[in-house]
Amino acid sequence: MVEIEIIAIGNELLLGDVLDTNSNWLCRKLTGLGGRMRRVVQVRDEQEAIAAEIQGALQRETDLLLTTGGLGPTDDDLTLQAVALALGRPLVEHPEALAIVARRYGELAALGHVSDAALTPARRKMAQLPAEGEPLFNPVGTAPPVLLRQGKTVLVCLPGVPAELKGIFEGPLTPLLQGLFGATSYAEWAAITDCGDESRLAPLLRRVVAGHRDVYVKSRAQHYGSGVKLRVTLSRAGSSADEVQAGLQAALADLQSTLAEAGIAVEKVEQG
Amino acid sequence: MVEIEIIAIGNELLLGDVLDTNSNWLCRKLTGLGGRMRRVVQVRDEQEAIAAEIQGALQRETDLLLTTGGLGPTDDDLTLQAVALALGRPLVEHPEALAIVARRYGELAALGHVSDAALTPARRKMAQLPAEGEPLFNPVGTAPPVLLRQGKTVLVCLPGVPAELKGIFEGPLTPLLQGLFGATSYAEWAAITDCGDESRLAPLLRRVVAGHRDVYVKSRAQHYGSGVKLRVTLSRAGSSADEVQAGLQAALADLQSTLAEAGIAVEKVEQG
Repeated sequence: MVEIEIIAIGNELLLGDVLDTNSNWLCRKLTGLGGRMRRVVQVRDEQEAIAAEIQGALQRETDLLLTTGGLGPTDDDLTLQAVALALGRPLVEHPEALAIVARRYGELAALGHVSDAALTPARRKMAQLPAEGEPLFNPVGTAPPVLLRQGKTVLVCLPGVPAELKGIFEGPLTPLLQGLFGATSYAEWAAITDCGDESRLAPLLRRVVAGHRDVYVKSRAQHYGSGVKLRVTLSRAGSSADEVQAGLQAALADLQSTLAEAGIAVEKVEQG
Repeated sequence: MVEIEIIAIGNELLLGDVLDTNSNWLCRKLTGLGGRMRRVVQVRDEQEAIAAEIQGALQRETDLLLTTGGLGPTDDDLTLQAVALALGRPLVEHPEALAIVARRYGELAALGHVSDAALTPARRKMAQLPAEGEPLFNPVGTAPPVLLRQGKTVLVCLPGVPAELKGIFEGPLTPLLQGLFGATSYAEWAAITDCGDESRLAPLLRRVVAGHRDVYVKSRAQHYGSGVKLRVTLSRAGSSADEVQAGLQAALADLQSTLAEAGIAVEKVEQG
């Protein structure tokens, strides 16, 4: 399994001003690719706090570590400084990154979105990468995302603007993701039961899970008077999509018969 | 400043199945009370991973540590076991917690939401508290939230169902919060500029912030072609709401004149 962590950076998250939909989107995408999301942490725009989280993830031998936010031109955009601190590498102006920034501001000036394309200190800052960092293209914004490797960990620094993050993930990051995840397959199923009492479902779910290696069943209580939600997922490296789907279906058959015996109905629901 | 951390627990968060609106709601509420949100972390339903996060927060001498989720009756509800492990305390059945659970199931059985009020092992589990833990009432669901103290840290374990969490925060938790936050005051202001170029705003914002102790200005880029958002906040312990509002207004006057000199218009927006 590819073990993954996310560090979401920005005071706006901790102030409660912005809901961190980026991490949720990444969790869903990366789980779908067969990855195992281990941890998401939100921290403020503070170099030491960010660096401490990066070091923790490296110590846990995280396979893929993503940061979001803090790549922009303002003084509180500190992600690359924090990465440099955590990895013990100097920050150096990267010619290719600077060319990307220059090209983007040229385009934006031509569109009238910025007044000129001058490489001011604030703009040049976005091309200051930790040594051996590799800039990727940002198809939506100006700040280049950065790819780094340290030990067994691949570290990717993504911008925090959702449209930029998604554009990079689904564009320039695709080859890296394909290399990391290979043939892992994932399948899922979600349903709602007509039983609102999680304490009654607990022993039944335990019995089902015991019979199906790797299958994970999560129950989630809602208000009393409404049914408990179930989510059944299976992810296996080196298995085809058909094999994983077959494993999931076997578990579902067992789940449905176990619940039916107990007089509990389940209805499949589509996931968002 | 009261330094606060949240540990949001649940595989559903890491799978991307559930967006963690609880933490966002808590960040907003606690910032509004004058607290300083330092960190939010989402972890899976794994006892050791949860315990490691609790120990980290204790080492950072967090004043208020909140956990959300994992208090229910199923086998993957592991929060209290993890707290016991992290604090080195045994889990013991708490008579008052058991009375709360019994009372709630009695009410739910009377309403027909559960088939009976029997104290099954799955239900009794919710009354197994780390030693010296104090159960609070849950006005919405069955699992009692738990209050603990370790060193200088106050630890509160809240359920993950949003309606339960909010009901507890705004009900039984109020006296604790009043004791912690005392007379700290907080004020905020948000606006959108007609400048879409964060790199142009950066040096202007730096100049404004330098003149106003404690005032925090956060800029947030959107798509190019749309304006950068600004959020200005001020939180001060031992100050009245009027004093904090006056401090914020002084910073805003400076911000508006600095931006006006540069030909940038700002328009106030209401926060959600």
